[in-house]
Amino acid sequence: MSAPLILISNDDGIQSPGLRALCEALQPLGQVVVMAPEVERSAVGHAITLSDPLRVAEVDLRLDGVTAYACSGTPADCVKLAVLAILPQRPSLVVSGINHGSNTGVNVIYSGTVSAATEGAILGIPSLAVSVDCRECNDLEPAKIIARLIATRMLETGLPAGTLLNVNIPDLPAEQLPSGWQEGRGYDLTVHGKADWQDHFDRRVDPQNRVYYWLTGRRREIEEESNTDEEALKAGRVSITPLHFDLTDHRARKALAGWELFKPA
Amino acid sequence: MSAPLILISNDDGIQSPGLRALCEALQPLGQVVVMAPEVERSAVGHAITLSDPLRVAEVDLRLDGVTAYACSGTPADCVKLAVLAILPQRPSLVVSGINHGSNTGVNVIYSGTVSAATEGAILGIPSLAVSVDCRECNDLEPAKIIARLIATRMLETGLPAGTLLNVNIPDLPAEQLPSGWQEGRGYDLTVHGKADWQDHFDRRVDPQNRVYYWLTGRRREIEEESNTDEEALKAGRVSITPLHFDLTDHRARKALAGWELFKPA
Repeated sequence: MSAPLILISNDDGIQSPGLRALCEALQPLGQVVVMAPEVERSAVGHAITLSDPLRVAEVDLRLDGVTAYACSGTPADCVKLAVLAILPQRPSLVVSGINHGSNTGVNVIYSGTVSAATEGAILGIPSLAVSVDCRECNDLEPAKIIARLIATRMLETGLPAGTLLNVNIPDLPAEQLPSGWQEGRGYDLTVHGKADWQDHFDRRVDPQNRVYYWLTGRRREIEEESNTDEEALKAGRVSITPLHFDLTDHRARKALAGWELFKPA
Repeated sequence: MSAPLILISNDDGIQSPGLRALCEALQPLGQVVVMAPEVERSAVGHAITLSDPLRVAEVDLRLDGVTAYACSGTPADCVKLAVLAILPQRPSLVVSGINHGSNTGVNVIYSGTVSAATEGAILGIPSLAVSVDCRECNDLEPAKIIARLIATRMLETGLPAGTLLNVNIPDLPAEQLPSGWQEGRGYDLTVHGKADWQDHFDRRVDPQNRVYYWLTGRRREIEEESNTDEEALKAGRVSITPLHFDLTDHRARKALAGWELFKPA
């Protein structure tokens, strides 16, 4: 059997050290191809480009055996375009990251990193998003090992249809990670938390005397249901959350069923 | 008691006829304020703007009693900025639309219209997205009546925390809509369907001999679970889907629980 084809993308852009680290991590598992945004595309949500054409350019990442392309679109565009127009065959795996900064709680909804993996899942391919809880990440070696262990398991077993995995890794040196992590044990199977941001807009005036606003904020500490992504990270543990894109609120359906609107005419 | 404050947004931009129709529809219910993108922002998903400042300009829509602002950001930016920085008090309702074109199935994930309502729900405000299944909509009068009936009910009852409503209306003349629609009865309480697009990229060469790609596609007919948004629309019925933004795939959690990764070290 030929080596599995692994598609890598991200939202930090083709030149990100996290993307390079992910290529290095997954090269032992198969044939790695990169399609990533040519520039940073953070907090783009699950945007796709309808009103502009997409451009693609091959980029030499100086990684032996890795073919890489930069794309003018969003992370979701990158994955869609690679799978439908560029790759010689369907990939066995889509992996997005390694993102500098966690993607937990409400941030998951805004995340370009997660959206690349969501697009992979929409296309029916087992997909994974990997983020590290740091801004200036010094040592991505533990994250590389963790990403490889999870990807290995996904290549072996696949995932239920419509599921993607959202992985968040604490920014800790190897010896402070939970024991067993290097053997692929002791990770936390979490839920998507509701931790959100105390958003605030900073109102400023520019030199032409025009008003503008900067979005700013800090994470709000709220009482959470247990076993969330954010809680695992805070405890210094590796969080793996299975996500889906069926947005139906089934609990609300029950609450709403009595509304007059839904009664027969 | 003073009239409730109703925030209106969309993704087609401040000059869209659908936005104007929505203002007219909801004016009888309270004080309407508009904050909408200054230009069209379709398929932006739940993007927010972190790397640029946001600008706001008051716009005269020539609608008595309606204050309107154009914002340089995405639909989610518009709602966040209005609620946190511009409005004098928290709105009682966030309504997004009226979108020209349905937002059902996988399109919900890419939809700017739905993302404005999602942002409202994230902020804890009962929120509603309204779309009509047409491209060149001639008569928005039925949609206006339907939006007003649903908004009235939401103002009376609220919604469960974390729920928003995604409403899709067939493009039919009043007399062909299901009986009872004008009295606010006989609507369908649906689920978010999995109908997706048979996506395709059209590869072209520009006058400078450079390759570019256009995303194109048509809706794929798939066997669906019953009671979906798309199915209701096809049957000429009004679809109301309660959505949430808890993305945890609880079914997959059970399937994954046996993975070695989650065993103790």
